[in-house]
Amino acid sequence: MEPRPAAPRPRLCDSLGADQTPSASTLNAARAEARPAGRRAPAVAAVLPAGGSGERMGVPTPKQFCPVLERPLISYTLQALERVCWIKDIVVAVTGENMEAMKGIIQKYQHQRISLVEAGVTRHRSIFNGLKALAEDQPDSKLSKPEVVIIHDAVRPFVEEDVLLKVVTAAKEYGAAGAIRPLVSTVISPSADGCLDHSLERARHRASEMPQAFLFDVIYEAYQQCSDYDLEFGTECLQLALKYGHIKAKLVEGSPDLWKVTYKRDLYAAESIIKERISQHICLIMDTKDENHVGHRLEEVLKDELNHVKVTSRLPCHTGRDLDQIVSEQCYSYVCVNVMTSDFEEIRKLVNMLEESNLSILYPVVVISVYFLDYKSVPFDQKMENLMQIREYAKEVKKRNILLCGLLIYYPQLP
Amino acid sequence: MEPRPAAPRPRLCDSLGADQTPSASTLNAARAEARPAGRRAPAVAAVLPAGGSGERMGVPTPKQFCPVLERPLISYTLQALERVCWIKDIVVAVTGENMEAMKGIIQKYQHQRISLVEAGVTRHRSIFNGLKALAEDQPDSKLSKPEVVIIHDAVRPFVEEDVLLKVVTAAKEYGAAGAIRPLVSTVISPSADGCLDHSLERARHRASEMPQAFLFDVIYEAYQQCSDYDLEFGTECLQLALKYGHIKAKLVEGSPDLWKVTYKRDLYAAESIIKERISQHICLIMDTKDENHVGHRLEEVLKDELNHVKVTSRLPCHTGRDLDQIVSEQCYSYVCVNVMTSDFEEIRKLVNMLEESNLSILYPVVVISVYFLDYKSVPFDQKMENLMQIREYAKEVKKRNILLCGLLIYYPQLP
Repeated sequence: MEPRPAAPRPRLCDSLGADQTPSASTLNAARAEARPAGRRAPAVAAVLPAGGSGERMGVPTPKQFCPVLERPLISYTLQALERVCWIKDIVVAVTGENMEAMKGIIQKYQHQRISLVEAGVTRHRSIFNGLKALAEDQPDSKLSKPEVVIIHDAVRPFVEEDVLLKVVTAAKEYGAAGAIRPLVSTVISPSADGCLDHSLERARHRASEMPQAFLFDVIYEAYQQCSDYDLEFGTECLQLALKYGHIKAKLVEGSPDLWKVTYKRDLYAAESIIKERISQHICLIMDTKDENHVGHRLEEVLKDELNHVKVTSRLPCHTGRDLDQIVSEQCYSYVCVNVMTSDFEEIRKLVNMLEESNLSILYPVVVISVYFLDYKSVPFDQKMENLMQIREYAKEVKKRNILLCGLLIYYPQLP
Repeated sequence: MEPRPAAPRPRLCDSLGADQTPSASTLNAARAEARPAGRRAPAVAAVLPAGGSGERMGVPTPKQFCPVLERPLISYTLQALERVCWIKDIVVAVTGENMEAMKGIIQKYQHQRISLVEAGVTRHRSIFNGLKALAEDQPDSKLSKPEVVIIHDAVRPFVEEDVLLKVVTAAKEYGAAGAIRPLVSTVISPSADGCLDHSLERARHRASEMPQAFLFDVIYEAYQQCSDYDLEFGTECLQLALKYGHIKAKLVEGSPDLWKVTYKRDLYAAESIIKERISQHICLIMDTKDENHVGHRLEEVLKDELNHVKVTSRLPCHTGRDLDQIVSEQCYSYVCVNVMTSDFEEIRKLVNMLEESNLSILYPVVVISVYFLDYKSVPFDQKMENLMQIREYAKEVKKRNILLCGLLIYYPQLP
């Protein structure tokens, strides 16, 4: 097993949103409180087989490493899992030849909580290697055995927390659970001579998709009992839980987003979806914790007024590292709210980082810098100078495809 | 049944390409010779159910009418079928509310050999309506009963002649045939309580795709015997041929291109694929029939040197109508070979049509105009004037996103 490429850093939990369920809260609580005995929330890890060769894609690069908007597909999938704060560890199985490339991706995009293991020659063998790394009997392992393990695909980048929560909750109750989708095409069974033997009734069948989740002991024991034939020719984990653990998995209806990037056309589709999401993502950078400050109203208004806009609030970014992380999330729209300062240092830092990231080469990056300044304490000359300064700076950065707009808001500070 | 929106005009058969098979030649020959009795080549028609509501897409427009690069998806599918000259008639089933829109599409994109029928409330009912229109017992019908009928989907725009030929040939031999693809996901059967009952062995099953083809009598009789349950809830034509005609359809391995536009992501993928194809399509316009002319060498060279480039050769376009058709095929690269003329009239006409088509709003259109002029008969002043003229004109049209390049080739005409 490979060492972790980067030590995990503490992360803020993303909000679970409006449809927060009691189970979600429980899971979050469990993470914060390190699983005291008797609590209901399980410790959760994820295994991601990423050893595929992508032969169906018709391109030499395995599909999970294919660039989508210049970033490897697997990096989007890791990001989707990382955002879910109750997933403790993410074990990725990659082939020896892609190990260095994978480490590079983890470093470049600052992925968290990732461990790498060597992939097997088949999907089942890769998953088994991932499970072995999580099992308690591994010496020198920094990983601890989870109660529930999620199995997901590296080439399904659009997995949402909602469906992850559903399969984990169902796995805890039933022992195994998996996402399903209606069939798009009728499934038929050919006879030996290449003719139709029979066709299956579409309404009575489903496509088995990912993510799936299992009580760790159920799936690990199933893999330990597996025949070589299973490991070589099987692909379906739910089937192993049924065959060796006698567990009938709970099936969870998933969204159309769960589809697997299989063909070249799927890469095209992934690119368009990612572009669409990027265009709806606003990163809001706030330099105050004071929730009564008028700046925080902006966040509320943005969330209320704009459909499908994701607002990422952050505390001020005094170190390059934090800005780095903001920029690595490929956001193209920034609103920086400055309450504490009236100089342009922060904004210059952000713009420099954006430039270095090459983000603005493909598409223009929009930065709106809002300054809240005390009406009385700033003399008129100073106001004009601020205005001119930001206009000049905007003109300069426009050449680099960064569209900067400064808003100076002078308001009377209440005593 | 609706009258044909436009009278079919004779079309040049597209070349069948390098992998021309004996069957393809036979089919072409049959078309030219109006099926004398005893010949092997069948008369072929196609039925295209296009009555779907597109509910899975999550958009109000039915998916077959969704614009892809500003052109409705179904128009690409019709184009793909029309290019195959041995398909005599194409019957499209659309709902009453979309009938006028469909007529507009046929007129705008100058589709040929299309007949419209009213769609039924289900896919099977729409196909049945299409078959009824082709059956001989319809009064006032301009259609004649084909020997073989292709059934295809309006939302599968990338069907190639190769697979159409394969299913038609197999249908003639076996009575029914359909394209299949390997399964992307494992198929499972849920139990009544929403748990896994069993999963199907992936290697022993296939996805049934389109196109399918049938001896007309086989599928028409099957539909006539169909139960209301079949017509309401069934979707699979191969199954009807099996159930009512006891015909085991021949299964033909199809390419990944056969996929069905089902979700929004598929529209994104379709758009990218169409863009890619457009970028690889060169339209060559030649104003001589003389195959020994050096201009024809250019066609050979282009075909030899460029991978995946489709060269469309055409005779000179003296009428607006012909140019119209060239432009409606959404080609972005033109090479015009002028042997008979040294004036710019033809090229001005083409550029004007391109402008009117709004093609160059989205992407630049490239036009290379090649003039072969007799070295001796053109005086030096005339040469310089020609050169200046084309440069000036190129400067002018560049403003309209049309990149014109003129090549004046002076060569000594042999006596």
